[in-house]
Amino acid sequence: MPVTITGLRTYDIRFPTSRELDGSDAMNPDPDYSASYVVIGTDATDSLEGHGFAFTIGRGNDVQTAAIRALEPALVGRAVAETLDDLGGMWRALVHDSQLRWLGPEKGVVHMAIAAVVNALWDLKAKRAGKPLWQLLAELPPEQLVELVDFRYLSDALTPGEALEILQRAEPGRAERAAQLRDGGYPAYATSPGWLGYSDEKLRRLCRDAVGQGFRQVKLKVGVDLADDIRRLRIARDAVGPDIRIAVDANQRWDVGAAIDWIRELAPFDPWWVEEPTSPDDVLGHAAIARAIAPVRVATGEHVANRVVFKQLLQANALSYLQLDAARVAGVNENVAILLLAAKFGVPVCPHAGGVGLCELVQHLAMFDFVAVSGSMDDRVIEYVDHLHEHFVDPVRLSGGNYLAPNRPGFSAQLRPEAMVDYAYPDGPVWKPIAGWTGA
Amino acid sequence: MPVTITGLRTYDIRFPTSRELDGSDAMNPDPDYSASYVVIGTDATDSLEGHGFAFTIGRGNDVQTAAIRALEPALVGRAVAETLDDLGGMWRALVHDSQLRWLGPEKGVVHMAIAAVVNALWDLKAKRAGKPLWQLLAELPPEQLVELVDFRYLSDALTPGEALEILQRAEPGRAERAAQLRDGGYPAYATSPGWLGYSDEKLRRLCRDAVGQGFRQVKLKVGVDLADDIRRLRIARDAVGPDIRIAVDANQRWDVGAAIDWIRELAPFDPWWVEEPTSPDDVLGHAAIARAIAPVRVATGEHVANRVVFKQLLQANALSYLQLDAARVAGVNENVAILLLAAKFGVPVCPHAGGVGLCELVQHLAMFDFVAVSGSMDDRVIEYVDHLHEHFVDPVRLSGGNYLAPNRPGFSAQLRPEAMVDYAYPDGPVWKPIAGWTGA
Repeated sequence: MPVTITGLRTYDIRFPTSRELDGSDAMNPDPDYSASYVVIGTDATDSLEGHGFAFTIGRGNDVQTAAIRALEPALVGRAVAETLDDLGGMWRALVHDSQLRWLGPEKGVVHMAIAAVVNALWDLKAKRAGKPLWQLLAELPPEQLVELVDFRYLSDALTPGEALEILQRAEPGRAERAAQLRDGGYPAYATSPGWLGYSDEKLRRLCRDAVGQGFRQVKLKVGVDLADDIRRLRIARDAVGPDIRIAVDANQRWDVGAAIDWIRELAPFDPWWVEEPTSPDDVLGHAAIARAIAPVRVATGEHVANRVVFKQLLQANALSYLQLDAARVAGVNENVAILLLAAKFGVPVCPHAGGVGLCELVQHLAMFDFVAVSGSMDDRVIEYVDHLHEHFVDPVRLSGGNYLAPNRPGFSAQLRPEAMVDYAYPDGPVWKPIAGWTGA
Repeated sequence: MPVTITGLRTYDIRFPTSRELDGSDAMNPDPDYSASYVVIGTDATDSLEGHGFAFTIGRGNDVQTAAIRALEPALVGRAVAETLDDLGGMWRALVHDSQLRWLGPEKGVVHMAIAAVVNALWDLKAKRAGKPLWQLLAELPPEQLVELVDFRYLSDALTPGEALEILQRAEPGRAERAAQLRDGGYPAYATSPGWLGYSDEKLRRLCRDAVGQGFRQVKLKVGVDLADDIRRLRIARDAVGPDIRIAVDANQRWDVGAAIDWIRELAPFDPWWVEEPTSPDDVLGHAAIARAIAPVRVATGEHVANRVVFKQLLQANALSYLQLDAARVAGVNENVAILLLAAKFGVPVCPHAGGVGLCELVQHLAMFDFVAVSGSMDDRVIEYVDHLHEHFVDPVRLSGGNYLAPNRPGFSAQLRPEAMVDYAYPDGPVWKPIAGWTGA
């Protein structure tokens, strides 16, 4: 009998982060960082399981978990080896289920549920192969990488043939770049200094600390009060000096006109990019902002629903940095598509991270991009936020402002068993004493 | 003590429509038309309740229902009169809940849940006022209509001042147009003839029937097989003659290039519009198709996630007809915004309907548009599909190819109690004998 998938175990895991204002920004004043978490089990004797999750910020994590459960019938009973050998086919089967597709299509809760499951399958595949995911992906032949991608709705911007060319062009230097990664890691930037809820003093101290730790870029949340933003940006610039990049992040706070006006007021402090200036759905709005605020650059992506919207942001010259998210689009396969699109348009990918476990995931994608797609680390950084890593079995490792290459098998997605008990919502021991807690 | 909202009752209602291939199209071969249904109760002595729903096509209707349940804490205990007097404020509170917003933002399951609840609140408001919703809306002062709209992300295309001007311009003729509606109704077009699963003979007969019933437009599903489409379009054109408009609907089947090629092949049969030629997220793709296939027109909207995407479709000249959906965007308030955007850009609104109860809902929106926003019925039609109306307390009434104006209080959203029992999933009497049914 072939080894089969036996079931999905799901968990509603929430961290009461809103009590400390960690993660506070212009649109999200009181997030409780959460994971709608899934473990894919098999009847193999190796006891390997696939772990994945969708990241949410509290309320609704139960709805997200219900959506993951709705995918179980598509998985249970499938042969593990065949499934993992054709994750492109599995992706299409999940995304194009016509009845579930109606609930998006390809966006929101159902798409994020597919992200969790697809990423868990990749975690399992990498564990079975005994390799970290970035390495597994970066060793696949270009033809197999192309097969992972669904080109539906992409072919006016990227054809399978063009994708293959991009991958083949990067093939000769793979081994050298993998070695370079293992030696020196991949540059990070630090978001932790700049949460809106922090005092000026804490902002200044954390900015200095970040530079001291080797980061060459920090990020500040902006967008609630212009005078506050100017004061905080002045403090940050003063703390880091002229050579460190300071990004600002509005978390979708503005309309198009307001974004342009606000960013012009911040321009004297030389912000490197402005992130999520407006609705993530507004391709034309981002393009208008990008034209108006140059040479300040536009970055976006953490809330971009799918590859079709990324395609348009690239077609419209609406962004200078593409910030893919590991678990909002439908997992690894869709992110391979997005990396290829970005390579085609020559736009650097600087992944969104933070939350619960997003740093752990995106490092693999950025490193795969470096080794096998764009072939470059120039002008690229992975977001780094120093939250909640202690709850992961294979947490990120930073050194000198760089992410070190993961070397354990898998996608680094696995929570520690005790975290899954302690932070279970609403009945885990962390939540019991604060029952009814719904934000700061 | 003021009257308050006491709770939400939710129901997973599914109709096993896939057994008859009603509703079959190029992307949705076997839909089981479903409603994630909500009843908002109060402690008033009048026994009036608000009914609303999200429309889905089967699997995932339980996830949709879980999302509606997640909104209950935002409603329970609120004073009914205050809530119904400020549905603009209620809409903002629901849509901008920062934690739930993360799961979209403003798209997918959570946004559709808000649609169900917001529409149920409008149903309750109209019942309490003793008026059909279209009339209630059409009698509101322009200033109050503007207050219903959240202009966030819209102001580069439509300001509150411009919206007020549009509404004030239409104010003088309101009473006359309302009388005209009550006399003659509002034009419909017929989708029922053209489902993909129907035989040529059935197609021909239903096309003739539609013309005989007074419809001036029919619609055919296309997009699976070009030779089939050409044959079916020839049959339909032959059946209806040269003066009846034939729309074709690809239900998102094509990439941009394929859409253009395919539609050119169908052009000899004079299709009036092509609907959903590609991904509903692809504003630039729709614009490219629209340029390439003129004078054939592009229509879309039933899967457009929110007002921000509609804004861009209008800005990019990507559509000739805007097909709003009553329960995909966040209900009446967002549709008022969309009607105003369409009026600003001079694009006719031809609502999407069908499914479960969508005809019942959108007739109110189109009639409100005629009386108080665009002030015109020219070149406008409401989709009509003859499914499942018998399950509603206040079903649509058609005459001579026109929707007759509803005259009962409310939003016509209420299912008959026996339907809610019979089609309850998975334990209602219709489902019990076909347990495990998951599509044709």
